Amino acid sequence: MSMKIVQNVLLLTPFLLCVSLSSAATPSISEQDLKTAAQLRDEALKTSKGYEIVESLTTEVGPRMAGTAGDAAAVKWGVAKLKELGFDKVWTEPVTFPTWKRGVETAEVISPFPQPLVITALGFSVGTEPEGLTAEIMAFDTLDDLINAPEGIADGKIVFIKHRMHKARDGSGYGPAVAARGRGAVEAAKKGAVGILIRSIGTDSHRMAHTGMMRYEEGTPRIPAAALSAPDADLLENMLKRKQPVKVKVTLDAQDGEQYTSHNVIGEITGSEKPEEYIIIGGHLDSWDLGTGALDDGAGIAITTAAAELIARLPQRPKRSIRVVMFANEEQGLVGARAYAEAHKDELQKIITGAESDFGAGKIWRLDSRVKSEALPVVEQMAKIMEPLGIEYGNNRAGGGPDLIPLRQMGISVFSLRQDGTDYFDYHHTPDDTLDKIEKESLDQNTAAYVVLAYITAQMDGDFGSGLE
Amino acid sequence: MSMKIVQNVLLLTPFLLCVSLSSAATPSISEQDLKTAAQLRDEALKTSKGYEIVESLTTEVGPRMAGTAGDAAAVKWGVAKLKELGFDKVWTEPVTFPTWKRGVETAEVISPFPQPLVITALGFSVGTEPEGLTAEIMAFDTLDDLINAPEGIADGKIVFIKHRMHKARDGSGYGPAVAARGRGAVEAAKKGAVGILIRSIGTDSHRMAHTGMMRYEEGTPRIPAAALSAPDADLLENMLKRKQPVKVKVTLDAQDGEQYTSHNVIGEITGSEKPEEYIIIGGHLDSWDLGTGALDDGAGIAITTAAAELIARLPQRPKRSIRVVMFANEEQGLVGARAYAEAHKDELQKIITGAESDFGAGKIWRLDSRVKSEALPVVEQMAKIMEPLGIEYGNNRAGGGPDLIPLRQMGISVFSLRQDGTDYFDYHHTPDDTLDKIEKESLDQNTAAYVVLAYITAQMDGDFGSGLE
Repeated sequence: MSMKIVQNVLLLTPFLLCVSLSSAATPSISEQDLKTAAQLRDEALKTSKGYEIVESLTTEVGPRMAGTAGDAAAVKWGVAKLKELGFDKVWTEPVTFPTWKRGVETAEVISPFPQPLVITALGFSVGTEPEGLTAEIMAFDTLDDLINAPEGIADGKIVFIKHRMHKARDGSGYGPAVAARGRGAVEAAKKGAVGILIRSIGTDSHRMAHTGMMRYEEGTPRIPAAALSAPDADLLENMLKRKQPVKVKVTLDAQDGEQYTSHNVIGEITGSEKPEEYIIIGGHLDSWDLGTGALDDGAGIAITTAAAELIARLPQRPKRSIRVVMFANEEQGLVGARAYAEAHKDELQKIITGAESDFGAGKIWRLDSRVKSEALPVVEQMAKIMEPLGIEYGNNRAGGGPDLIPLRQMGISVFSLRQDGTDYFDYHHTPDDTLDKIEKESLDQNTAAYVVLAYITAQMDGDFGSGLE
Repeated sequence: MSMKIVQNVLLLTPFLLCVSLSSAATPSISEQDLKTAAQLRDEALKTSKGYEIVESLTTEVGPRMAGTAGDAAAVKWGVAKLKELGFDKVWTEPVTFPTWKRGVETAEVISPFPQPLVITALGFSVGTEPEGLTAEIMAFDTLDDLINAPEGIADGKIVFIKHRMHKARDGSGYGPAVAARGRGAVEAAKKGAVGILIRSIGTDSHRMAHTGMMRYEEGTPRIPAAALSAPDADLLENMLKRKQPVKVKVTLDAQDGEQYTSHNVIGEITGSEKPEEYIIIGGHLDSWDLGTGALDDGAGIAITTAAAELIARLPQRPKRSIRVVMFANEEQGLVGARAYAEAHKDELQKIITGAESDFGAGKIWRLDSRVKSEALPVVEQMAKIMEPLGIEYGNNRAGGGPDLIPLRQMGISVFSLRQDGTDYFDYHHTPDDTLDKIEKESLDQNTAAYVVLAYITAQMDGDFGSGLE
């Protein structure tokens, strides 16, 4: 999951808002279909197909940052995997974007207590001069404190933002914390800083820094930006308590790369009655470069692919089509998601609903919807089938997942199968995002929920209307 | 804690075994002294002096691998800290040893699934050629499997030892696992290998490799040796399951350095009645280079220094002297410990007993002794005072801690205050050995136990005899 680039997305949408995505029919689902959904749910708990898929992706591809050789390998993998699993149609759609290269990244305290620091560059940070950037640290408790500080207060300094993200099942600590990553460099530069170090946007205490996107702004100097691991942020704080100037040297050779064209990878189980109508489930195929992208978002790819594959094993195809979309380059700004929305903007009425899995591999504890009110009885029936999985119904204000933001803003209805993300930000965007963090049992529970969602929405009569209602 | 280099130590000892370290007096301790010991125990639980000390060492010095600038800074820190805390005498004793430099260390899978691997060189490994070492992986479940394999089986290959260390409160998984680190390179070279990668000797699943000592042998080629992080060892295993050759490139520029002279740092609370008799408590001042040496062994330094300092705050000095010894270069072969034993071999009868803290910062759960049987009643009384700390008496076969092995083998009695090491090998010898892994409360409990041990042994009438009895 990356920052949500809502502003850019909104630019695409206003003229579409008047499209009616709702039909007159009262939505309903048959008893037989509910029974099949329950069988699929139970079947999902018995397979480990999801785990096989994420094991395959992390082992055979590994890191797949947008625009790297890993990205290309992942696209190839996705196409081959969907074909191997018996999807009826498998294709790719191009997604073009600027790229960024990490390079070497080191930091050390120069004085008063020389020792190395573990850092990682933030995505799209500029590099330092080759000899590194050496300057005194100026600490702020929060991004707001920096914003509210006087002009010129950080002249020639490296700003350090100490804010600690809090841990929560729903990941609610991320929003308040992540602004320091996205906007920190701009705000620090405005105060005269020559660089910025933030405490990693994460909830662990391991010596790994969390990367993720940052942005520059026209007219503000582009200063190098990196994250410190939590123990290194602690260390700097402890040094600063001694009331002596703390001088740090940071060396980054990060740089912008060429434009690159990757691909959304799409696999379809083609519907038997209304093949042109479809449900989207999926995740994003890219990852950051530090880990193998098991949780972010190999798990989402695996869960949704395994769910669709279970439906493909039924003696007959569902009424509507089910598309698994493996979105390209989510991490650097929902680029694949925007490309998909743009490419399919004329078929919005055919997209019955969507749900992305992009919050790791923890168990799902809640189902949220965003559908027209007449469709809520079907959602209620769906929730009943999910109940034995430990899932409760939440509300009708679902987000749908980052890669569905563009489509949602154009009016498609969405669902959120909300995962337990208590530990998600322990690993998020670090080298530690690896296969061993995934439990088969949790992954199967996720697959079970997605298969219920996909099957019921593919079989129901009527539609969910617009998520904008 | 490093591997115990018992063989080397034994060479020093035979001629000393005939020294009698036992006097005729039946050991005893007064009720008043036991009362004071209990007061000291309770006082220890109220201070956070131990935490202050380890915070100071990790913040102001940080990594302090033997022979580095950090080593020199640590010696300076130790002397200053002991003086600041009011020790009566503070001095250093020289310790000379060969050194080793880590340098850059990288690895990657070249084929069939190119991706980076996280490794770290083992201590005293040779480097590779500058362009790296590229070869196919040959995996063995255990070191024994490698030893028992046919001659030449690993010709031109990089051996990979998959053995997983198990987790246990008493650290009992370490012994069976660590041989792969110490002897792996020699055994692999004997089978024709050009390099060796071991699964880290650790119990975590984080993407950090565990360093530690390895040894070469005269007449066997010196091949590069490194440890893989647990997730990277998993990854290699998963790749190998595909039954295709897995080719890896390893680049190490590790190399031997110059001889170096560091120092044992010693602080004494000088006894009021028998100042020439003393008790040793302590830890080792060096660490590996990857972390800040908080658990290994900043904690031991802190616990024992804080315990002695509590005794120094009493209105009068104890009868015997208490020495806090901060041993130099434990990690690379108990070098400081052997130097101390050699320098003090003529005063063994004056060393009443000893105990080293070198197993992290977990709570102490057991007291073991190694004393003459006539002294066991005093040990029993000591155990009673420790009981409220959740400590039970174990047996009379204490080890005393790695740095007391040389003295123990010369005949001094020892105690072991056994810590809960369940998580110790999650962090041991990794970048993750940092201050945040230490809980103040546990550290205080440790200090409380050490102050009881030190005070009672400093006050008792009679002695503990020889640990060899």
